[in-house]
Amino acid sequence: MISRADVEELDRADPLRRFRDRFVGADDDLIYLDGNSLGRLPVSAADRLFEVVHSQWAHGLVRSWESWIGWPRSVGDLLGSVLLGAAPDQVVLSDSTSVNLYKLAAAALDLRHSRTTIVSDSGNFPTDRYILSGLASARGLRVVEVDGTSLPDVVAALSDDVALVALSHVDYRSGALLPMAEITAAAHGVGALVLWDLCHSVGAVPVSLDACAVDFAVGCTYKYLNAGPGAPAFLYVASALQASARQPIWGWFGQQGQFEMGAQYAPVESIERFLVGTPAVLGIALVEEGVKLLAEAGIDRLRAKGSALTSLLIELADSWLAPLGFEVASPRSDAQRGSHVSLRHDDAYRISQALIEHQVVPDFRRPDLVRFGCSPLTTSFGDVYEAMRRLRDIVSSGRHLDIEIPTRRVT
Amino acid sequence: MISRADVEELDRADPLRRFRDRFVGADDDLIYLDGNSLGRLPVSAADRLFEVVHSQWAHGLVRSWESWIGWPRSVGDLLGSVLLGAAPDQVVLSDSTSVNLYKLAAAALDLRHSRTTIVSDSGNFPTDRYILSGLASARGLRVVEVDGTSLPDVVAALSDDVALVALSHVDYRSGALLPMAEITAAAHGVGALVLWDLCHSVGAVPVSLDACAVDFAVGCTYKYLNAGPGAPAFLYVASALQASARQPIWGWFGQQGQFEMGAQYAPVESIERFLVGTPAVLGIALVEEGVKLLAEAGIDRLRAKGSALTSLLIELADSWLAPLGFEVASPRSDAQRGSHVSLRHDDAYRISQALIEHQVVPDFRRPDLVRFGCSPLTTSFGDVYEAMRRLRDIVSSGRHLDIEIPTRRVT
Repeated sequence: MISRADVEELDRADPLRRFRDRFVGADDDLIYLDGNSLGRLPVSAADRLFEVVHSQWAHGLVRSWESWIGWPRSVGDLLGSVLLGAAPDQVVLSDSTSVNLYKLAAAALDLRHSRTTIVSDSGNFPTDRYILSGLASARGLRVVEVDGTSLPDVVAALSDDVALVALSHVDYRSGALLPMAEITAAAHGVGALVLWDLCHSVGAVPVSLDACAVDFAVGCTYKYLNAGPGAPAFLYVASALQASARQPIWGWFGQQGQFEMGAQYAPVESIERFLVGTPAVLGIALVEEGVKLLAEAGIDRLRAKGSALTSLLIELADSWLAPLGFEVASPRSDAQRGSHVSLRHDDAYRISQALIEHQVVPDFRRPDLVRFGCSPLTTSFGDVYEAMRRLRDIVSSGRHLDIEIPTRRVT
Repeated sequence: MISRADVEELDRADPLRRFRDRFVGADDDLIYLDGNSLGRLPVSAADRLFEVVHSQWAHGLVRSWESWIGWPRSVGDLLGSVLLGAAPDQVVLSDSTSVNLYKLAAAALDLRHSRTTIVSDSGNFPTDRYILSGLASARGLRVVEVDGTSLPDVVAALSDDVALVALSHVDYRSGALLPMAEITAAAHGVGALVLWDLCHSVGAVPVSLDACAVDFAVGCTYKYLNAGPGAPAFLYVASALQASARQPIWGWFGQQGQFEMGAQYAPVESIERFLVGTPAVLGIALVEEGVKLLAEAGIDRLRAKGSALTSLLIELADSWLAPLGFEVASPRSDAQRGSHVSLRHDDAYRISQALIEHQVVPDFRRPDLVRFGCSPLTTSFGDVYEAMRRLRDIVSSGRHLDIEIPTRRVT
């Protein structure tokens, strides 16, 4: 059995250990295992925000738009090259993940307008399923939901009536990592387009959009990219599709000669046609700082540490927690798992609350999952060990049974 | 003729003069007359941002969502009561103005699905016209563009085939203030719905959405509300319409029991059904600080000062600039004008650039307008006087003729 001394040795040997100091508050007396819901604040991001606000906004004022106007694309290019395996001119920062899903799914459905089926995952994140069902409802299409973690199930759902396959790369509950290359190839085999939601993989798992010949992708920046609550999302559209794909929200930031303010909408023939309104300047600056940190760490090292952290968590759960009614609800193979692990327990809500009272922050996912995010830059092996130890102590002593279950909660 | 001494007296007597000290950089050696493009940074906003970032994000982390989750609505209510004449539960902060226009125009068109005409203004802001034309194109509708500043022209375009009348309350070029009550009543008279874009009026002109029985409205927060570049926009939906109006982007922030993460989209029966994805927390905090400042100043005092500033500008333009080829391109009646004035001149682009070189920041609006925004909280009468004096000197000496016109400009 792994010991605390073993874990301390893992932390000493961790090539990313010094990145913890690059975040504000990482020395707090708190074990934070929800960085895949909201990542920590990088010191560099706080500094950058101060500069953008106090120098560019306060003094540069409207003149700073000369610089800001290029950020959705320049930061998109950086993100694309560092984390998405995307050549330049295919990624922009824009809107929220939900709005981007809407824009790109609508564009895909227009490109395959003679087909009537969308394939998604029954376990896909709620907003993905809602957005797709809204588009299907408006257009008289059907959404077929399969188990996206099963390649045979996805393949079985494919036919020449499928317009779009829209899946999450990493499942928000189980952490299952879907085979992007195989699913994309299978979808293309029947002439369907693919749209990948990267929210739970970007920054934690290598992504190779170009190499996988992905058509469309979206993702958020407030998880592993540490860009802050409500930071703008990104979208990717493969170069080959940019001239033909049209999005439904014809905003002025997608317009040719935007400041000519011409009478007719005529979108640029580049990735910027997927922009809509005024970009969230402060948020994009924070994305850039987050991506720079991840670039410095390197996605391969991040991935290796994420796998090691989640493996440790699973090992401890098997030893300490299985006897207490916990079941590992995530894939056991590193290659099939992102950077979070969920444990199933009938009392998951009360256990999550009790952990928070004991300075361990996980996430509760209905109805019966306690989810632990292992953000590689800010999580230590000691964090995982100590969190599992407290969890064992809480449940074995029955302390979680004191927690009241509210009739209605906000989160 | 008004003298510099007269202007100094106006500034001394200005009840809002002390608000200038509440903004960062307002003492710079710069005459900023583009606060209706990007407002200045309030000192309180900078402080608030620091608190949200360094305390709520860095240390509260994901737990701060308990508070943040209510902000789109609570700040919407504040904005509604202070500046929009809107009773609670009808305004939220969300997305960009363009995305909100799309959502609400689509909702209105669904409510009037048997009608095929949208009425807008040929001089409406580009994104408004593009968004409407995109919706019309997707649905096989037509957009009729009239001169929105002419009530008879708007009325003449109305019929029982009109689903939606979508206009800007204040014209982004001329500053013309449209008669909201009369147009709304006329539209309702034929059974059409109205959608007002308040970008150039909110915070400068009193708005009475409830009293005018407006159906839908949108607006931005980075102009007179001083919430910063790309800050989130707002939307208003009248209470009576909230149960029946459905928007097309079915995001999880509009869902009943959002964190139940249910299988089917079932929107809440409140204004929050018009939310989509994760709200821009930092931006909403900045909106709140901006609105608080405006509340303290009072919209009636703001309006009175805006009228006085723009009147002064017109008076000086008539005296000093008309002989130099300038023409006032804004309404001369205070009651028909927002808080900015445009001057027409054949050399508007070069003149705008020359002004910037002489530390006066206006906005150039193609093809021939120099636009001067008189944000009441941050603009002094002395600013207006000195800007017009420099403008006269530049043009009378021909200094603007040295400016090169680039073949392609970013802004």
